[in-house]
Amino acid sequence: MSATALQPDLDLAASLFEALSRATRRGRGIVRDSYGAGEQAAHDIVRAAASTLGLEISIDPIGNLFVTLPGRERSAPRIIMGSHLDSVPQGDNYDGAAGVVAGLAVLSALRRAGVVLDCDLAVMAIRAEESCWFDVAYLGSGGAFGLLDPNCLSVARSDNGQSLEATLQQQGFDPEPIRERRRLLDPGRIRAYLELHIEQGPTLVARGLPAAVVSGIRGCRRFRHARCTGEYAHSGAVSRSYRRDAVAATVALLHHMETVWLRHEAAGDDLVLTSGELCTDPAMHGPSKIAGETRFVLDIRGLSAATMDEVAAEARAAAGRIGPAYRVHIDLGATSDSPPAVMDARLRSQLLSLLDRPFEMASGAGHDAAVFAQVGIPSAMIFVRNENGSHNADEAMSLDDFAVGARALLQLVMQFSR
Amino acid sequence: MSATALQPDLDLAASLFEALSRATRRGRGIVRDSYGAGEQAAHDIVRAAASTLGLEISIDPIGNLFVTLPGRERSAPRIIMGSHLDSVPQGDNYDGAAGVVAGLAVLSALRRAGVVLDCDLAVMAIRAEESCWFDVAYLGSGGAFGLLDPNCLSVARSDNGQSLEATLQQQGFDPEPIRERRRLLDPGRIRAYLELHIEQGPTLVARGLPAAVVSGIRGCRRFRHARCTGEYAHSGAVSRSYRRDAVAATVALLHHMETVWLRHEAAGDDLVLTSGELCTDPAMHGPSKIAGETRFVLDIRGLSAATMDEVAAEARAAAGRIGPAYRVHIDLGATSDSPPAVMDARLRSQLLSLLDRPFEMASGAGHDAAVFAQVGIPSAMIFVRNENGSHNADEAMSLDDFAVGARALLQLVMQFSR
Repeated sequence: MSATALQPDLDLAASLFEALSRATRRGRGIVRDSYGAGEQAAHDIVRAAASTLGLEISIDPIGNLFVTLPGRERSAPRIIMGSHLDSVPQGDNYDGAAGVVAGLAVLSALRRAGVVLDCDLAVMAIRAEESCWFDVAYLGSGGAFGLLDPNCLSVARSDNGQSLEATLQQQGFDPEPIRERRRLLDPGRIRAYLELHIEQGPTLVARGLPAAVVSGIRGCRRFRHARCTGEYAHSGAVSRSYRRDAVAATVALLHHMETVWLRHEAAGDDLVLTSGELCTDPAMHGPSKIAGETRFVLDIRGLSAATMDEVAAEARAAAGRIGPAYRVHIDLGATSDSPPAVMDARLRSQLLSLLDRPFEMASGAGHDAAVFAQVGIPSAMIFVRNENGSHNADEAMSLDDFAVGARALLQLVMQFSR
Repeated sequence: MSATALQPDLDLAASLFEALSRATRRGRGIVRDSYGAGEQAAHDIVRAAASTLGLEISIDPIGNLFVTLPGRERSAPRIIMGSHLDSVPQGDNYDGAAGVVAGLAVLSALRRAGVVLDCDLAVMAIRAEESCWFDVAYLGSGGAFGLLDPNCLSVARSDNGQSLEATLQQQGFDPEPIRERRRLLDPGRIRAYLELHIEQGPTLVARGLPAAVVSGIRGCRRFRHARCTGEYAHSGAVSRSYRRDAVAATVALLHHMETVWLRHEAAGDDLVLTSGELCTDPAMHGPSKIAGETRFVLDIRGLSAATMDEVAAEARAAAGRIGPAYRVHIDLGATSDSPPAVMDARLRSQLLSLLDRPFEMASGAGHDAAVFAQVGIPSAMIFVRNENGSHNADEAMSLDDFAVGARALLQLVMQFSR
């Protein structure tokens, strides 16, 4: 049987999506709370399907589920396909789950066709990727590689206040590997990590493409608590040269940063700049007052740490110039940083060659693939077209587009194992 | 006795300031609530002082107090010196009261020196200038000229919810003239209106000047409820060309308006531009979100209605350009307008000649003088240096600076009556 003739098991995929939706929809949206009832229901569905398919099943001490199709040489480094099964509150059915379902559709197709690869091929249903429940991202994948700060065990779940440690124990899992920073997975024993995920932005819809290869996952330099301090005064009674106008200075800074962005864009650098929170103080501001304070966020993301560092430095330099010029003080504060994760060059080019209309794009949102890449595992991602973004109840992925992505995943795996 | 030898009665002024502070200080600040106990206490103090000086006293139906030094020809149009006696909550002792006290210090000096002017000279202690109590500015002066919208009678006082009508009646005053838009003062019978007031901005402190002549009172074109509507999205997942970023568009608009301001300033136009309120939606925004909405104020003030109209039109045009460019909708809404009031050219030049260090400046805040100018009465204002602005408990006017202003007022009156 040729690789191109083999198709992912789309009937299985459709029934899994249906079962997941039925089990975890709460009102309009989906709720698969990390290490809670919603996520567990999703894990139970995946596990039952794996069992029906006759695949090997294992669960690690922190609850990550592995479904494995044994290969010819069981001791050889394996290939993992995966994504997470949790969701944000009132999210929707595809963010995360699509990657796990795609992996199962691939395993099912290989199993039915009797294909035996030269190494094990596993689907990893990863726990707790969303940071909204425990304010820590990548609990499942980070925990599997011993990367978590053990202090995260005392973080309270945002809805019920229960600590991560107590939650893990209650669910029958073991917090010890996290406390000891113990690796549950050996990066040297993983040949590749492959993740299919819905796109969370509008690019593929706008371009009319069903799927894309992800070039990398943008890192972040975020000034989370920037503040500009001037002086409140009567808007009519103070001429420009005496003003200490916090809004005017903040506008000057943000406008300057837009010109910095445009310059980098023109130079071909991958970069996005956002101030998504910007507020004068409702307790102090007024329509006929000069504002004495603003608080804002400046979020810098890109595929290159050097570019992000340069842009953060430009923001600091601009704040240092603009502050005195407007007689205010701009305190950007420290940045919260997350490193960019570049996907494996060989896997990217293989995946691109498998798409009818090859297209590559950066991922702005974080994904478990970033953790796998961070520990040196060759990693790759496929984005599937999805309308209306994610982290809301309006995701819209068609099964046809999903099939394009899952097919590329299957074909890549077949190539890999030849 | 020569005009320059005559000095305003500073002892009286000092004792009046002291009595006003004692009677109306509540904690750190002053509270002279419009048509309430605090304002009435101030009126009682002024009235008692006028009685002691043997001056004529009258009160109009809406509570404005007139203290008159009779002139030689009682039927001739009179000169009125005045200001208001109310204050904002937790204001301070000089905003408003300084103008009334200065008038009494002038009347006392003339009375003691036995000077009889050729016309009546009155001090008008005006009611309810501050808009914070009834959300209507210039109740006392506007009401005296029949300029108020009768609907204002149903406006509730901001602290106790009592309507203006009920409040007036409770204080023994008569709402009928307001209901009938009846004039209590005939503009044709007023030769001039002269108001001394503390400066509410930092200009005189910065320039080291004790007093200034006011060129005019800035009018206002205020976009009070401007709104920019874009689309919330993931800050990392949406590239620039697909964003509908409300903050970026608002920044572009406000930055453009600063360039408009600089251009007008370079051309010598009197203008101030302020956005004192600017907020993303705390219920919707997030540090890793593109903002889908901003709400902001754009406050345009100046001495020329034409300039303000031009700037408001430029703001609308810019919103019309920037909105589509950023794929957002900028709705500036309607402007709330107040007309500028240019002070009388002859009075201004007379006053300037009376200052050792002549300096003229615009008033950004509104004053009762704007109402007198609006009905065609030659009007003038003197600003006295004051640190820390006003509408707070930190006003700082020295009696020496007050004396400079009161002396100019006295000398102007003497010239006028020759």
